[in-house]
Amino acid sequence: MKATLAQLAALVGGTVQGDPELELSGVAALEDARAGEITFVARKKYLPLLSRSAASAVIIEPGLSVDRPALVVSNAYLAFSKILAHFHPPAAPRTGVDPRAFVEEGVVLEGEVSIYPFAWVGKGARLGAGVILHAGVAVGEGVTIGRDTVIHCNVSIYPGVTIGQRVIIHSGAVLGSDGFGFVPAEGGRHQKIPQVGGVVIEDDVEIGANVCIDRATLGVTRVGRGTKIDNLVQIAHNVKVGEDSIIVALAGISGSVTIGKGVTIAGQAGLGDHITVGDGSTIAGQSGVAKDVEPGSVLTGTPAIPHVLWRRVQACVPQLPEMVRKLQNLDKRLRQLEQQKEKD
Amino acid sequence: MKATLAQLAALVGGTVQGDPELELSGVAALEDARAGEITFVARKKYLPLLSRSAASAVIIEPGLSVDRPALVVSNAYLAFSKILAHFHPPAAPRTGVDPRAFVEEGVVLEGEVSIYPFAWVGKGARLGAGVILHAGVAVGEGVTIGRDTVIHCNVSIYPGVTIGQRVIIHSGAVLGSDGFGFVPAEGGRHQKIPQVGGVVIEDDVEIGANVCIDRATLGVTRVGRGTKIDNLVQIAHNVKVGEDSIIVALAGISGSVTIGKGVTIAGQAGLGDHITVGDGSTIAGQSGVAKDVEPGSVLTGTPAIPHVLWRRVQACVPQLPEMVRKLQNLDKRLRQLEQQKEKD
Amino acid sequence: MKATLAQLAALVGGTVQGDPELELSGVAALEDARAGEITFVARKKYLPLLSRSAASAVIIEPGLSVDRPALVVSNAYLAFSKILAHFHPPAAPRTGVDPRAFVEEGVVLEGEVSIYPFAWVGKGARLGAGVILHAGVAVGEGVTIGRDTVIHCNVSIYPGVTIGQRVIIHSGAVLGSDGFGFVPAEGGRHQKIPQVGGVVIEDDVEIGANVCIDRATLGVTRVGRGTKIDNLVQIAHNVKVGEDSIIVALAGISGSVTIGKGVTIAGQAGLGDHITVGDGSTIAGQSGVAKDVEPGSVLTGTPAIPHVLWRRVQACVPQLPEMVRKLQNLDKRLRQLEQQKEKD
Repeated sequence: MKATLAQLAALVGGTVQGDPELELSGVAALEDARAGEITFVARKKYLPLLSRSAASAVIIEPGLSVDRPALVVSNAYLAFSKILAHFHPPAAPRTGVDPRAFVEEGVVLEGEVSIYPFAWVGKGARLGAGVILHAGVAVGEGVTIGRDTVIHCNVSIYPGVTIGQRVIIHSGAVLGSDGFGFVPAEGGRHQKIPQVGGVVIEDDVEIGANVCIDRATLGVTRVGRGTKIDNLVQIAHNVKVGEDSIIVALAGISGSVTIGKGVTIAGQAGLGDHITVGDGSTIAGQSGVAKDVEPGSVLTGTPAIPHVLWRRVQACVPQLPEMVRKLQNLDKRLRQLEQQKEKD
Repeated sequence: MKATLAQLAALVGGTVQGDPELELSGVAALEDARAGEITFVARKKYLPLLSRSAASAVIIEPGLSVDRPALVVSNAYLAFSKILAHFHPPAAPRTGVDPRAFVEEGVVLEGEVSIYPFAWVGKGARLGAGVILHAGVAVGEGVTIGRDTVIHCNVSIYPGVTIGQRVIIHSGAVLGSDGFGFVPAEGGRHQKIPQVGGVVIEDDVEIGANVCIDRATLGVTRVGRGTKIDNLVQIAHNVKVGEDSIIVALAGISGSVTIGKGVTIAGQAGLGDHITVGDGSTIAGQSGVAKDVEPGSVLTGTPAIPHVLWRRVQACVPQLPEMVRKLQNLDKRLRQLEQQKEKD
Repeated sequence: MKATLAQLAALVGGTVQGDPELELSGVAALEDARAGEITFVARKKYLPLLSRSAASAVIIEPGLSVDRPALVVSNAYLAFSKILAHFHPPAAPRTGVDPRAFVEEGVVLEGEVSIYPFAWVGKGARLGAGVILHAGVAVGEGVTIGRDTVIHCNVSIYPGVTIGQRVIIHSGAVLGSDGFGFVPAEGGRHQKIPQVGGVVIEDDVEIGANVCIDRATLGVTRVGRGTKIDNLVQIAHNVKVGEDSIIVALAGISGSVTIGKGVTIAGQAGLGDHITVGDGSTIAGQSGVAKDVEPGSVLTGTPAIPHVLWRRVQACVPQLPEMVRKLQNLDKRLRQLEQQKEKD
């Protein structure tokens, strides 16, 4: 899986500085690259590291001048990603249904699929061509999975969930579990509200390990095309996430929240129920949001406030004990003046 | 699965306004309901939405006047929940032990059970009548599961765990894993404390997807009757949760915590070890509690303080930079007065 | 599994007070111990509880005087832990590969192993002697597992992961899932960066239930010898955790973080990407750390500040509304003085 500098340039749409026939065997980070490999420098400040790197070539953006053959591209990181994919093509999956898997009667396989040992597919399910179900995956009755979707080991998909094309679902994720809905009943008991809605995962979504996406009470919980969800995220019933959004690990999205397009919800952030987060917004890590968020907002803190304000506020927080002392001091000095005044 | 308005009224104990023979085919939210379906209006403020709804009938509480046939009940949301269950009866599970499952010798099945492919039941386990084990469930040696309990795909239950009747456990949950207990040993090492206690889940508990409930070091970790636990919650060793409590997604309950009855622990809240949370308390989302909580408290923040105080405090937080400026300003003005005083 | 006081003393390296031939049948906490059992008192303040305990003997540290036979040791809690292990030896696992498990061709079993039903081991994997794979475990192609490592039900291990000796991995944990890495591409889309690195888990690590440890983009994600990870923790791509550290439930460690030796990351804490946490540091529960942490630091809060300062700050926080009022009051009084001054 070698490639010349010229071949890599063609792959990513860049231009070559130096020998176009230089043959490269891999791509690696600045610190790790060995002779024969290409590395990348996305920012000028990393240039000093390059001089110590054993890499035989480097991916750079225009305007950087370097000491070895280079591939010049408009977006070094994107080119790196494509070249990495070139040097590490995904392993070809075994094809067919392993005899130790079990596909129930009446399941529709729309083309060649790969189903590993101990995976189970319930009645009425439909799998597109190129679908891979790894070991121990459970696909409930009536689930639809689009072509080239990959589902890793021990994922659980409840009945009726709909999954698009080229979706990647990591191990341990759960799609379609019951929404957390109860009505107060007699004696302080909680009466379960049947959760009869669905889950729709659109094309090109990636879902991290041990993520939970609950089915809707009525209607659907939906994750929009191209959205990427990190590990251990909670998506409650009836949530709608727009396209191309990012939800980072351990974030919690409460019931009936609507998240727009291109939104970033950082790690461990929490969104209260029934709110709307406008397109292009960013919610910082560990923030707690209980109100609607305007498009393009950048919020931080619990309760979340504009990030710029939050930074100014946080700079003051450690001064609080000093502020208390200053208040006492001012009060004392003022009292002295007031007393003198009275005497005068 | 159709029903007349009169039949629904009988089901939920309500009275009919309009044609009791009106036939209904389903129940749906205001925005989604189609002709032939019944919807519900739990609060007066949603009445304007009703006028635009295609629903043929509506569930309301006394005192609301509406433009179509209605079912009048004391608790609209509870009636909605019951009617939803009527229109969506759970799918009848297949019965019997699938030949691709494996039940070890000496397991006691107390009646008809449903065991799906690739579920495994260890020696000495005992399953009540009506128990459903979905695909990939692992039930360790000596586990007891009460009647009509449903365990979804890929749940892991360690040896010796005791589960009551009508419990629902969602996919990926883990019950009975080792408590996180170590003793400092030589050289900064951590010596594992054997975790030899148990886990008891009482009747009518619901446990969300990917929840973790650790076994006790000694004694038991216990979740009380009717308590509902959302996805991705951590319940550490030796925790006791009372009856009819609610623990929302991503909350973390540390070792040996005692939670009372009717308590609500909101999402991403954390409770420090060995504390007691009194009956009927509410801990708000993302709060951190390190001290005992009096019954009936409503706490927010880290460290958690009474919610009413927290709200007042949070209203001040964004003013901190302004407060710092005001302090400087006051000091300056005061100094001028003081200097004048000295001159006088 | 009975033992005399003298035998227990030999086991833990302690001395006996009272009858060395006293026979004991178990160990239990002060409140739970029955006649015939030994209990322990780690701190003087628990001595009053001892007088009410039915325990026949007690583990104490030097300097405590008690009313019954005692085992005197330098570290009561450590001795308790060892005695607990003595009275509760782990159940002997069945040995061999269950016929319902599936081990692919070319897997190397270096000695007697225990593989339970529906566990799957991919091609090229290598398992040390004494390895136990519980039901439903999935071990990807080329994974290496050291001797005496125990992997509980439904754990998922991606291809190429390396696991040391005597490691314990609890149910539902996922090792080697893709790092969460994307490059902004045209139209706001997120282009996946191939995640081609590995995961190395060193000897004597314990990994909690439903933990996620992502593989590195390039290079490895590494967890150092003896480190203990609680349930539901997220370890992102390229993280390095040193030896003998502790990471508590629901903590989130972002990409490329380096954690030293003997560090404690408490529950629900979050570490921002690319930071370094020095040896011996402690990050308190729910804290958020975005900057490098000096060795030996104790930090709390979001953003995290020294714990001692945090405590002083938090003592002031509830006074904020009062501080706002005081500022207004000072301003008003000062204005009066200033106005009088002008009149003078």
